Amino acid sequence: MTTPARRGRPRSGDADGRILRAAQDLLTERGYDKFAIDEVAARATVAKTTLYRRWPTKDHLLVALVARIQDEVEVADTGDIRHDLTVYLTAVATGLDRMRRVGRGAAGEADRSAGVVAELVAAAARHPDVGDAVRGLFARRNALPLRLLDHARERGALPPGVSSEVLFDQLAGALYYRLLITGAPIGADYVDELVGQVLAGAATTPHPERT
Amino acid sequence: MTTPARRGRPRSGDADGRILRAAQDLLTERGYDKFAIDEVAARATVAKTTLYRRWPTKDHLLVALVARIQDEVEVADTGDIRHDLTVYLTAVATGLDRMRRVGRGAAGEADRSAGVVAELVAAAARHPDVGDAVRGLFARRNALPLRLLDHARERGALPPGVSSEVLFDQLAGALYYRLLITGAPIGADYVDELVGQVLAGAATTPHPERT
Repeated sequence: MTTPARRGRPRSGDADGRILRAAQDLLTERGYDKFAIDEVAARATVAKTTLYRRWPTKDHLLVALVARIQDEVEVADTGDIRHDLTVYLTAVATGLDRMRRVGRGAAGEADRSAGVVAELVAAAARHPDVGDAVRGLFARRNALPLRLLDHARERGALPPGVSSEVLFDQLAGALYYRLLITGAPIGADYVDELVGQVLAGAATTPHPERT
Repeated sequence: MTTPARRGRPRSGDADGRILRAAQDLLTERGYDKFAIDEVAARATVAKTTLYRRWPTKDHLLVALVARIQDEVEVADTGDIRHDLTVYLTAVATGLDRMRRVGRGAAGEADRSAGVVAELVAAAARHPDVGDAVRGLFARRNALPLRLLDHARERGALPPGVSSEVLFDQLAGALYYRLLITGAPIGADYVDELVGQVLAGAATTPHPERT
């Protein structure tokens, strides 16, 4: 059963948007296990070949969906690093929690599964090209908070010796560690405590001869 | 084809040890995909029913293997928190890197897959009982470094306001984040920088009226 391609030469951007919207809807309804790429093509009214050429497996489509969710998270640089990091990481934590619940029905508070976030991690580990796509996605996205930290250091809000990359690993790592490994909550209270502790520490790292 | 149980009433501890050794060997040779529980039973010369009663799926067996690898990592409290954390986290990073490479052949430096660590994360997310086992395992293991941090705070090597749990999330989280998400290296140099930055920060967190 093939789905006819839409007539009238739609720009590929339109088709991509339709595909990703259909994919997100289907993933939300069904969950990762029952998420079939052929059904995405049918819902988006694009030819299966069009979809497969762009995203050869459902894992590739999943990476594109995660990119889309991440791109909705803005990174604002107001000059208050604590505030900006808290807002950013709260949005990341909310996005992770939303992805975690996708397609898992109303399992409620007792459900501590990392859901589709864990599927992304597994797909990245199994398929080198999916791994490259995931690492590329995070490199691109993380450039924004890293720049935020660089700016804070440049204006003296962080000491010169602090590594933005290591500081960001401490922050984002804590969220992913809780989500994927310990199952501990990553709500707003936790993000607040985390940012406070990381920055209170970093901001007072001894650095010689800074007046 | 059944494998006869060994005669002479071996204590179950013996059978468990044989099963886990056989499982580790097979996992190392084959990798997770081709790792079959029936073959583990045959190699360990235990009845399949014995094995399935104890570990119903290969994911349960994987959790037990990870527990075994983790239990090999000692947590020493010498009174030098920076040294003790560096030793501990270097051992954790080495163990993670070893697990990551299990069954992946000689793919070399270019292979950035998280391997069987990602499979563990996915299994924990898919099966509630595996998830409970993984979370229980980490809760048990993490109690040791958390106690290390508590002791450091009690003797004044960390300020009273610092949360051991959040501090540990910053440390362990950074390692898992690099392994599972960004693919950045977690060698001894990185662990050293990470521990240095986290502790230099935490140790100088302002806390009023401490003389």
